[in-house]
Amino acid sequence: MPPTPEPSPRLKARLWVETDGVALTEAGADFLEQVEATGSLSEAARRLRYSYRRAWLLVDAMNHRWPGPLVTTAVGGKRGGGAQLTERGRAVLAAYRDLQVQLEHVLDRATPGFDKATRG
Amino acid sequence: MPPTPEPSPRLKARLWVETDGVALTEAGADFLEQVEATGSLSEAARRLRYSYRRAWLLVDAMNHRWPGPLVTTAVGGKRGGGAQLTERGRAVLAAYRDLQVQLEHVLDRATPGFDKATRG
Repeated sequence: MPPTPEPSPRLKARLWVETDGVALTEAGADFLEQVEATGSLSEAARRLRYSYRRAWLLVDAMNHRWPGPLVTTAVGGKRGGGAQLTERGRAVLAAYRDLQVQLEHVLDRATPGFDKATRG
Repeated sequence: MPPTPEPSPRLKARLWVETDGVALTEAGADFLEQVEATGSLSEAARRLRYSYRRAWLLVDAMNHRWPGPLVTTAVGGKRGGGAQLTERGRAVLAAYRDLQVQLEHVLDRATPGFDKATRG
């Protein structure tokens, strides 16, 4: 049998944004995306299998670490009303997704060089 | 007094390499660099304030997760002999450092877009 080819090393990166603390992570971006899609904190939390408390704390932290909120909730109580992204929330999410795409491109382009280095 | 300007959001990324497990992290790359600089596992560990045991486990994990070792240790016992990077070790470290530089460039270029998004 031919020798098993060596698996390629996989390049991974995690991206986050800091202001006076961690202001946006991948988990935060995923949550914002689900709020945008569902118009509801509780539905966004359900889809990501977060407790409502965890989702609320995540949104609260994000809202306080930017110059203004990323998410607004409608009147009707924490669970009662809808939720939506602010203009800032949509812009920050879009900037984060754009940057993720650029990072993936850099990682993809670097992979052949790592393959070569790996062979020693 | 003029209003305090909003601080810019800082974009951060962490980079690692996986094979059948985590094969290289920032800590691993820093350790390889110190082995290269000092020719000694114990001196590299001292400089990074690692216990010798932690350093040894780190090297052992890196050596087993690539097709061949990144670090070789000379005869003379774990603490006695010198240590140096293999050709593979030097190549992998160089590829990692190159990629870190490219990632930093991407983050730097993305920062003005985040500043704009932040203002909402």
